[in-house]
Amino acid sequence: MHYLCIKDFHLPFNSTDEQIAAFHAKCASYGVTGYGVGPIYMATEAEADRAFAYARRVGVKVLVGVPNYEILPYVDKKLEEYPEIKYAIHLHGPDIDIFQTASVIWDKVKDLNPRMGMCLDIGHDLRGGADPVEDLKKYHTRVFDMHFKDESEASKAGWCVEIGRGKIDFPALVRMMRKVGYSGVCSLEYEKDMDDPFMGIAESFGYLKAVCHMA
Amino acid sequence: MHYLCIKDFHLPFNSTDEQIAAFHAKCASYGVTGYGVGPIYMATEAEADRAFAYARRVGVKVLVGVPNYEILPYVDKKLEEYPEIKYAIHLHGPDIDIFQTASVIWDKVKDLNPRMGMCLDIGHDLRGGADPVEDLKKYHTRVFDMHFKDESEASKAGWCVEIGRGKIDFPALVRMMRKVGYSGVCSLEYEKDMDDPFMGIAESFGYLKAVCHMA
Repeated sequence: MHYLCIKDFHLPFNSTDEQIAAFHAKCASYGVTGYGVGPIYMATEAEADRAFAYARRVGVKVLVGVPNYEILPYVDKKLEEYPEIKYAIHLHGPDIDIFQTASVIWDKVKDLNPRMGMCLDIGHDLRGGADPVEDLKKYHTRVFDMHFKDESEASKAGWCVEIGRGKIDFPALVRMMRKVGYSGVCSLEYEKDMDDPFMGIAESFGYLKAVCHMA
Repeated sequence: MHYLCIKDFHLPFNSTDEQIAAFHAKCASYGVTGYGVGPIYMATEAEADRAFAYARRVGVKVLVGVPNYEILPYVDKKLEEYPEIKYAIHLHGPDIDIFQTASVIWDKVKDLNPRMGMCLDIGHDLRGGADPVEDLKKYHTRVFDMHFKDESEASKAGWCVEIGRGKIDFPALVRMMRKVGYSGVCSLEYEKDMDDPFMGIAESFGYLKAVCHMA
Protein backbone atom coordinates (compact mmCIF):
# COMPACT_ATOMS: atom_id res chain seq x y z
CA MET A 1 0.00 0.00 0.00
CA HIS A 2 1.61 3.20 -1.20
CA TYR A 3 -1.04 5.89 -0.98
CA LEU A 4 -3.06 7.38 1.83
CA CYS A 5 -6.12 9.60 1.75
CA ILE A 6 -5.44 11.84 4.73
CA LYS A 7 -8.33 12.17 7.14
CA ASP A 8 -8.46 14.93 9.73
CA PHE A 9 -7.89 12.36 12.48
CA HIS A 10 -4.52 11.75 10.82
CA LEU A 11 -3.72 15.43 10.39
CA PRO A 12 -6.08 17.99 11.94
CA PHE A 13 -7.35 20.95 9.90
CA ASN A 14 -5.42 23.38 12.09
CA SER A 15 -2.06 21.63 11.68
CA THR A 16 0.89 23.94 11.23
CA ASP A 17 3.09 23.73 8.15
CA GLU A 18 5.70 22.04 10.34
CA GLN A 19 3.20 19.41 11.47
CA ILE A 20 2.14 18.83 7.88
CA ALA A 21 5.78 18.40 6.80
CA ALA A 22 6.39 15.99 9.68
CA PHE A 23 3.34 13.96 8.72
CA HIS A 24 4.46 13.67 5.09
CA ALA A 25 7.94 12.68 6.26
CA LYS A 26 6.47 9.96 8.46
CA CYS A 27 4.40 8.63 5.54
CA ALA A 28 7.45 8.74 3.28
CA SER A 29 9.45 6.70 5.79
CA TYR A 30 6.94 3.88 5.12
CA GLY A 31 6.97 4.41 1.35
CA VAL A 32 3.53 6.01 1.50
CA THR A 33 2.35 9.17 -0.26
CA GLY A 34 -0.58 11.18 1.03
CA TYR A 35 -2.43 11.79 -2.22
CA GLY A 36 -5.67 13.35 -1.05
CA VAL A 37 -7.62 14.66 1.92
CA GLY A 38 -11.04 13.73 3.19
CA PRO A 39 -13.80 12.90 3.25
CA ILE A 40 -14.44 16.39 4.60
CA TYR A 41 -18.00 17.47 5.39
CA MET A 42 -18.83 20.98 4.25
CA ALA A 43 -22.27 22.35 4.90
CA THR A 44 -21.36 26.01 4.50
CA GLU A 45 -19.20 28.19 2.30
CA ALA A 46 -16.89 28.85 5.25
CA GLU A 47 -16.37 25.11 5.67
CA ALA A 48 -15.64 24.79 1.96
CA ASP A 49 -13.10 27.61 2.22
CA ARG A 50 -11.40 25.88 5.11
CA ALA A 51 -11.31 22.53 3.28
CA PHE A 52 -9.77 23.97 0.11
CA ALA A 53 -7.18 25.94 2.04
CA TYR A 54 -6.31 22.82 4.01
CA ALA A 55 -5.98 20.73 0.84
CA ARG A 56 -3.59 23.25 -0.66
CA ARG A 57 -1.52 23.51 2.52
CA VAL A 58 -1.31 19.72 2.69
CA GLY A 59 -0.26 19.79 -0.97
CA VAL A 60 -2.65 17.20 -2.41
CA LYS A 61 -4.46 17.05 -5.74
CA VAL A 62 -7.66 15.35 -4.59
CA LEU A 63 -10.16 16.76 -2.14
CA VAL A 64 -12.81 14.24 -1.14
CA GLY A 65 -15.79 16.26 -0.03
CA VAL A 66 -19.26 15.81 1.35
CA PRO A 67 -20.99 19.09 0.43
CA ASN A 68 -24.61 20.06 0.80
CA TYR A 69 -26.36 20.47 -2.52
CA GLU A 70 -26.72 24.19 -1.80
CA ILE A 71 -23.00 24.93 -1.84
CA LEU A 72 -22.21 23.08 -5.06
CA PRO A 73 -22.18 26.32 -7.12
CA TYR A 74 -19.79 27.81 -4.58
CA VAL A 75 -17.51 24.76 -4.69
CA ASP A 76 -17.63 24.87 -8.48
CA LYS A 77 -16.38 28.45 -8.40
CA LYS A 78 -13.71 27.61 -5.82
CA LEU A 79 -12.13 25.22 -8.31
CA GLU A 80 -11.16 28.19 -10.44
CA GLU A 81 -8.97 29.40 -7.58
CA TYR A 82 -7.55 25.89 -7.13
CA PRO A 83 -6.49 24.65 -10.56
CA GLU A 84 -4.45 21.82 -9.01
CA ILE A 85 -7.38 20.22 -7.24
CA LYS A 86 -9.99 17.70 -8.28
CA TYR A 87 -13.07 17.71 -6.10
CA ALA A 88 -14.40 14.20 -5.48
CA ILE A 89 -17.83 14.04 -3.88
CA HIS A 90 -18.16 11.01 -1.65
CA LEU A 91 -21.27 8.92 -2.20
CA HIS A 92 -22.89 7.40 0.84
CA GLY A 93 -25.50 4.88 -0.19
CA PRO A 94 -28.91 4.50 1.34
CA ASP A 95 -27.98 5.59 4.88
CA ILE A 96 -28.28 9.29 4.12
CA ASP A 97 -30.46 11.43 1.91
CA ILE A 98 -27.99 13.03 -0.49
CA PHE A 99 -25.41 11.67 -2.91
CA GLN A 100 -26.53 8.08 -2.43
CA THR A 101 -25.10 6.67 -5.65
CA ALA A 102 -22.81 7.61 -8.52
CA SER A 103 -25.66 8.55 -10.82
CA VAL A 104 -26.88 11.19 -8.39
CA ILE A 105 -23.47 12.83 -8.30
CA TRP A 106 -23.15 12.61 -12.08
CA ASP A 107 -26.43 14.45 -12.54
CA LYS A 108 -25.32 17.20 -10.16
CA VAL A 109 -21.82 17.72 -11.58
CA LYS A 110 -21.96 16.87 -15.26
CA ASP A 111 -22.50 20.49 -16.29
CA LEU A 112 -20.02 21.94 -13.81
CA ASN A 113 -16.23 22.25 -13.90
CA PRO A 114 -14.66 19.04 -15.30
CA ARG A 115 -12.71 18.77 -12.05
CA MET A 116 -15.99 18.39 -10.20
CA GLY A 117 -16.61 14.67 -9.81
CA MET A 118 -16.81 11.81 -7.38
CA CYS A 119 -15.13 9.39 -5.06
CA LEU A 120 -16.79 6.17 -6.19
CA ASP A 121 -17.41 4.25 -2.97
CA ILE A 122 -18.19 0.85 -4.47
CA GLY A 123 -19.74 -0.50 -1.29
CA HIS A 124 -22.15 2.36 -0.73
CA ASP A 125 -22.98 2.42 -4.45
CA LEU A 126 -23.88 -1.29 -4.30
CA ARG A 127 -25.88 -0.84 -1.12
CA GLY A 128 -27.73 1.99 -2.85
CA GLY A 129 -28.98 -0.44 -5.48
CA ALA A 130 -26.45 0.52 -8.17
CA ASP A 131 -23.82 -1.54 -9.99
CA PRO A 132 -20.39 -0.03 -9.28
CA VAL A 133 -18.84 -1.70 -12.35
CA GLU A 134 -21.47 -0.21 -14.64
CA ASP A 135 -21.24 3.13 -12.86
CA LEU A 136 -17.48 3.25 -13.36
CA LYS A 137 -18.07 2.58 -17.05
CA LYS A 138 -20.69 5.30 -17.34
CA TYR A 139 -19.15 7.99 -15.17
CA HIS A 140 -15.40 7.33 -15.31
CA THR A 141 -14.60 10.79 -16.67
CA ARG A 142 -15.71 12.15 -13.31
CA VAL A 143 -14.34 9.41 -11.05
CA PHE A 144 -11.28 10.93 -9.34
CA ASP A 145 -10.99 8.57 -6.37
CA MET A 146 -12.37 5.20 -5.29
CA HIS A 147 -13.18 3.66 -1.93
CA PHE A 148 -12.69 -0.07 -1.98
CA LYS A 149 -14.53 -2.46 0.33
CA ASP A 150 -16.84 -5.44 0.03
CA GLU A 151 -20.40 -5.78 1.27
CA SER A 152 -22.26 -8.73 2.76
CA GLU A 153 -25.43 -7.81 0.84
CA ALA A 154 -26.26 -5.70 -2.20
CA SER A 155 -28.82 -3.72 -0.22
CA LYS A 156 -29.09 -1.31 2.68
CA ALA A 157 -28.75 -4.32 5.01
CA GLY A 158 -25.21 -4.97 3.77
CA TRP A 159 -22.21 -4.38 5.97
CA CYS A 160 -18.50 -4.16 5.30
CA VAL A 161 -16.67 -7.49 4.96
CA GLU A 162 -13.23 -8.61 3.87
CA ILE A 163 -12.74 -8.08 0.13
CA GLY A 164 -13.59 -11.34 -1.60
CA ARG A 165 -16.17 -12.45 0.97
CA GLY A 166 -18.99 -10.22 -0.27
CA LYS A 167 -21.11 -9.33 -3.24
CA ILE A 168 -18.84 -7.12 -5.32
CA ASP A 169 -17.39 -8.66 -8.48
CA PHE A 170 -13.78 -7.50 -8.16
CA PRO A 171 -12.47 -9.23 -11.28
CA ALA A 172 -15.11 -7.40 -13.33
CA LEU A 173 -14.31 -4.16 -11.52
CA VAL A 174 -10.57 -4.41 -12.15
CA ARG A 175 -11.16 -5.22 -15.81
CA MET A 176 -13.40 -2.17 -16.09
CA MET A 177 -10.82 0.03 -14.36
CA ARG A 178 -8.33 -1.05 -17.01
CA LYS A 179 -10.81 -0.62 -19.83
CA VAL A 180 -11.65 2.96 -18.92
CA GLY A 181 -8.04 3.75 -17.99
CA TYR A 182 -8.75 4.69 -14.40
CA SER A 183 -5.67 6.53 -13.17
CA GLY A 184 -6.68 7.48 -9.66
CA VAL A 185 -6.04 5.72 -6.39
CA CYS A 186 -8.06 2.93 -4.78
CA SER A 187 -8.34 3.54 -1.06
CA LEU A 188 -9.24 0.51 1.00
CA GLU A 189 -11.89 1.78 3.42
CA TYR A 190 -12.15 -1.15 5.78
CA GLU A 191 -14.82 -0.55 8.40
CA LYS A 192 -15.04 -3.99 10.01
CA ASP A 193 -13.33 -5.01 13.27
CA MET A 194 -12.36 -1.40 13.85
CA ASP A 195 -10.51 -2.22 17.07
CA ASP A 196 -8.18 -4.60 15.25
CA PRO A 197 -8.73 -4.37 11.50
CA PHE A 198 -5.32 -5.56 10.36
CA MET A 199 -6.12 -9.20 9.58
CA GLY A 200 -9.06 -8.16 7.43
CA ILE A 201 -7.02 -5.46 5.71
CA ALA A 202 -4.27 -7.99 4.92
CA GLU A 203 -6.76 -10.56 3.61
CA SER A 204 -8.39 -7.86 1.45
CA PHE A 205 -4.99 -6.80 0.15
CA GLY A 206 -4.08 -10.39 -0.75
CA TYR A 207 -7.38 -10.94 -2.53
CA LEU A 208 -6.99 -7.76 -4.58
CA LYS A 209 -3.42 -8.59 -5.45
CA ALA A 210 -4.47 -11.90 -6.96
CA VAL A 211 -7.34 -10.26 -8.83
CA CYS A 212 -4.91 -7.73 -10.31
CA HIS A 213 -2.54 -10.56 -11.28
CA MET A 214 -5.28 -12.57 -12.95
CA ALA A 215 -7.97 -10.19 -14.24
CA MET B 1 -9.46 -22.29 7.21
CA HIS B 2 -11.11 -25.50 8.22
CA TYR B 3 -8.36 -28.10 8.54
CA LEU B 4 -5.28 -28.43 10.70
CA CYS B 5 -2.31 -30.73 10.40
CA ILE B 6 -1.59 -31.42 14.06
CA LYS B 7 2.02 -30.94 15.06
CA ASP B 8 3.39 -32.34 18.30
CA PHE B 9 3.70 -28.82 19.68
CA HIS B 10 -0.09 -28.67 19.36
CA LEU B 11 -0.64 -32.09 20.88
CA PRO B 12 2.36 -33.96 22.35
CA PHE B 13 2.97 -37.60 21.45
CA ASN B 14 2.28 -38.66 25.04
CA SER B 15 -1.11 -36.97 25.23
CA THR B 16 -3.79 -38.98 26.99
CA ASP B 17 -7.02 -39.90 25.23
CA GLU B 18 -8.71 -37.20 27.30
CA GLN B 19 -6.22 -34.59 26.14
CA ILE B 20 -6.71 -35.68 22.54
CA ALA B 21 -10.48 -35.43 22.88
CA ALA B 22 -10.16 -31.98 24.46
CA PHE B 23 -7.92 -30.83 21.61
CA HIS B 24 -10.37 -32.02 18.97
CA ALA B 25 -13.20 -30.31 20.83
CA LYS B 26 -11.23 -27.06 20.90
CA CYS B 27 -10.59 -27.29 17.14
CA ALA B 28 -14.26 -28.08 16.51
CA SER B 29 -15.30 -24.99 18.47
CA TYR B 30 -13.52 -22.96 15.76
CA GLY B 31 -14.95 -25.03 12.90
CA VAL B 32 -11.59 -26.72 12.38
CA THR B 33 -10.91 -30.44 11.84
CA GLY B 34 -7.53 -31.95 12.63
CA TYR B 35 -7.03 -34.06 9.50
CA GLY B 36 -3.46 -35.28 9.90
CA VAL B 37 -0.41 -35.35 12.13
CA GLY B 38 3.14 -34.29 11.47
CA PRO B 39 5.63 -33.75 10.09
CA ILE B 40 7.05 -36.39 12.43
CA TYR B 41 10.71 -37.35 12.18
CA MET B 42 11.35 -41.07 12.44
CA ALA B 43 14.90 -42.34 12.24
CA THR B 44 14.21 -45.72 13.82
CA GLU B 45 11.58 -48.43 13.78
CA ALA B 46 10.65 -47.54 17.35
CA GLU B 47 10.00 -43.94 16.30
CA ALA B 48 7.88 -45.19 13.40
CA ASP B 49 5.90 -47.38 15.81
CA ARG B 50 5.29 -44.44 18.08
CA ALA B 51 4.21 -42.20 15.18
CA PHE B 52 1.70 -44.71 13.79
CA ALA B 53 0.25 -45.42 17.22
CA TYR B 54 -0.06 -41.69 17.82
CA ALA B 55 -1.77 -41.12 14.46
CA ARG B 56 -4.33 -43.81 15.25
CA ARG B 57 -4.98 -42.52 18.75
CA VAL B 58 -5.45 -39.00 17.35
CA GLY B 59 -7.79 -40.52 14.79
CA VAL B 60 -6.40 -39.03 11.59
CA LYS B 61 -6.04 -40.48 8.10
CA VAL B 62 -2.83 -38.74 7.09
CA LEU B 63 0.55 -39.21 8.72
CA VAL B 64 3.14 -36.74 7.44
CA GLY B 65 6.48 -38.37 8.07
CA VAL B 66 10.16 -37.69 7.69
CA PRO B 67 11.68 -41.19 7.66
CA ASN B 68 15.24 -42.23 7.01
CA TYR B 69 15.61 -44.18 3.77
CA GLU B 70 16.55 -47.26 5.80
CA ILE B 71 13.20 -47.60 7.52
CA LEU B 72 11.07 -47.23 4.39
CA PRO B 73 10.55 -51.02 4.10
CA TYR B 74 9.45 -51.07 7.73
CA VAL B 75 7.05 -48.16 7.22
CA ASP B 76 5.72 -49.88 4.10
CA LYS B 77 4.92 -52.95 6.18
CA LYS B 78 3.38 -50.86 8.97
CA LEU B 79 0.76 -49.61 6.51
CA GLU B 80 -0.69 -53.11 6.42
CA GLU B 81 -1.48 -52.79 10.12
CA TYR B 82 -2.93 -49.30 9.55
CA PRO B 83 -5.33 -49.55 6.61
CA GLU B 84 -6.88 -46.17 7.46
CA ILE B 85 -3.64 -44.22 7.10
CA LYS B 86 -1.88 -42.63 4.17
CA TYR B 87 1.79 -42.00 4.76
CA ALA B 88 2.93 -38.70 3.28
CA ILE B 89 6.68 -38.17 3.19
CA HIS B 90 7.56 -34.54 3.61
CA LEU B 91 10.03 -33.17 1.08
CA HIS B 92 12.55 -30.66 2.32
CA GLY B 93 14.33 -29.07 -0.62
CA PRO B 94 18.03 -28.38 -0.82
CA ASP B 95 18.62 -27.76 2.88
CA ILE B 96 18.95 -31.44 3.76
CA ASP B 97 20.28 -34.51 2.00
CA ILE B 98 17.24 -36.76 1.66
CA PHE B 99 13.82 -36.32 0.08
CA GLN B 100 14.71 -32.99 -1.49
CA THR B 101 12.04 -32.96 -4.17
CA ALA B 102 8.91 -34.80 -5.26
CA SER B 103 10.73 -36.89 -7.84
CA VAL B 104 13.03 -38.35 -5.18
CA ILE B 105 10.07 -39.49 -3.12
CA TRP B 106 8.30 -40.85 -6.17
CA ASP B 107 11.31 -43.00 -7.03
CA LYS B 108 11.44 -44.36 -3.49
CA VAL B 109 7.74 -45.14 -3.07
CA LYS B 110 6.38 -45.95 -6.52
CA ASP B 111 6.79 -49.70 -6.03
CA LEU B 112 5.61 -49.70 -2.42
CA ASN B 113 2.12 -49.69 -0.90
CA PRO B 114 -0.15 -47.26 -2.81
CA ARG B 115 -0.72 -45.47 0.50
CA MET B 116 2.97 -44.61 0.58
CA GLY B 117 3.35 -41.16 -0.92
CA MET B 118 4.20 -37.57 -0.23
CA CYS B 119 3.32 -34.26 1.29
CA LEU B 120 4.14 -31.98 -1.65
CA ASP B 121 5.77 -28.95 -0.07
CA ILE B 122 5.60 -26.60 -3.04
CA GLY B 123 8.14 -24.16 -1.60
CA HIS B 124 10.82 -26.73 -0.85
CA ASP B 125 10.16 -28.42 -4.20
CA LEU B 126 10.71 -25.11 -5.99
CA ARG B 127 13.82 -24.33 -3.96
CA GLY B 128 15.11 -27.78 -4.90
CA GLY B 129 15.02 -26.84 -8.55
CA ALA B 130 11.75 -28.60 -9.39
CA ASP B 131 8.46 -27.29 -10.75
CA PRO B 132 5.71 -28.04 -8.21
CA VAL B 133 2.95 -27.72 -10.83
CA GLU B 134 4.63 -30.27 -13.10
CA ASP B 135 5.40 -32.49 -10.12
CA LEU B 136 1.77 -32.49 -9.05
CA LYS B 137 0.83 -33.51 -12.58
CA LYS B 138 3.38 -36.31 -12.65
CA TYR B 139 3.03 -37.67 -9.14
CA HIS B 140 -0.53 -36.80 -8.10
CA THR B 141 -1.47 -40.41 -7.43
CA ARG B 142 0.96 -40.31 -4.52
CA VAL B 143 0.31 -36.75 -3.30
CA PHE B 144 -1.70 -37.10 -0.08
CA ASP B 145 -1.04 -33.72 1.45
CA MET B 146 0.33 -30.33 0.37
CA HIS B 147 2.23 -27.58 2.15
CA PHE B 148 1.43 -24.20 0.71
CA LYS B 149 3.80 -21.26 0.87
CA ASP B 150 5.52 -18.89 -1.52
CA GLU B 151 9.25 -18.37 -1.99
CA SER B 152 11.27 -15.25 -2.75
CA GLU B 153 13.52 -17.18 -5.14
CA ALA B 154 13.31 -20.45 -7.05
CA SER B 155 16.61 -21.62 -5.58
CA LYS B 156 18.16 -22.58 -2.29
CA ALA B 157 18.49 -18.85 -1.53
CA GLY B 158 14.69 -18.49 -1.47
CA TRP B 159 12.84 -17.80 1.74
CA CYS B 160 9.18 -17.96 2.71
CA VAL B 161 7.07 -14.94 1.71
CA GLU B 162 3.39 -14.09 1.66
CA ILE B 163 1.56 -16.11 -0.99
CA GLY B 164 1.38 -13.98 -4.13
CA ARG B 165 4.63 -12.13 -3.49
CA GLY B 166 6.96 -14.90 -4.62
CA LYS B 167 7.86 -17.16 -7.50
CA ILE B 168 5.17 -19.83 -7.40
CA ASP B 169 2.48 -19.66 -10.08
CA PHE B 170 -0.61 -20.26 -7.94
CA PRO B 171 -3.17 -19.90 -10.74
CA ALA B 172 -1.36 -22.65 -12.64
CA LEU B 173 -1.11 -24.73 -9.47
CA VAL B 174 -4.82 -24.44 -8.66
CA ARG B 175 -5.74 -25.32 -12.24
CA MET B 176 -3.53 -28.39 -12.03
CA MET B 177 -5.04 -29.42 -8.68
CA ARG B 178 -8.43 -29.34 -10.35
CA LYS B 179 -7.21 -31.14 -13.44
CA VAL B 180 -5.75 -34.05 -11.49
CA GLY B 181 -8.63 -34.05 -9.00
CA TYR B 182 -6.52 -33.43 -5.93
CA SER B 183 -8.74 -34.30 -2.96
CA GLY B 184 -6.37 -33.75 -0.04
CA VAL B 185 -5.86 -30.72 2.12
CA CYS B 186 -3.64 -27.70 1.48
CA SER B 187 -1.89 -26.68 4.67
CA LEU B 188 -0.54 -23.17 4.72
CA GLU B 189 2.93 -23.52 6.23
CA TYR B 190 3.82 -19.90 6.82
CA GLU B 191 7.32 -19.55 8.20
CA LYS B 192 7.84 -15.80 7.96
CA ASP B 193 7.44 -13.34 10.84
CA MET B 194 7.09 -16.26 13.23
CA ASP B 195 6.55 -13.97 16.24
CA ASP B 196 3.49 -12.39 14.61
CA PRO B 197 2.59 -14.26 11.44
CA PHE B 198 -1.09 -13.37 11.30
CA MET B 199 -0.99 -10.49 8.81
CA GLY B 200 0.98 -12.61 6.36
CA ILE B 201 -1.33 -15.57 6.89
CA ALA B 202 -4.37 -13.40 6.22
CA GLU B 203 -2.83 -11.88 3.10
CA SER B 204 -1.92 -15.36 1.84
CA PHE B 205 -5.44 -16.57 2.54
CA GLY B 206 -6.95 -13.64 0.61
CA TYR B 207 -4.66 -14.20 -2.34
CA LEU B 208 -5.51 -17.90 -2.51
CA LYS B 209 -9.20 -17.20 -2.22
CA ALA B 210 -9.12 -14.95 -5.27
CA VAL B 211 -7.04 -17.50 -7.19
CA CYS B 212 -9.63 -20.17 -6.40
CA HIS B 213 -12.43 -17.83 -7.49
CA MET B 214 -10.75 -16.98 -10.77
CA ALA B 215 -8.54 -19.91 -11.84
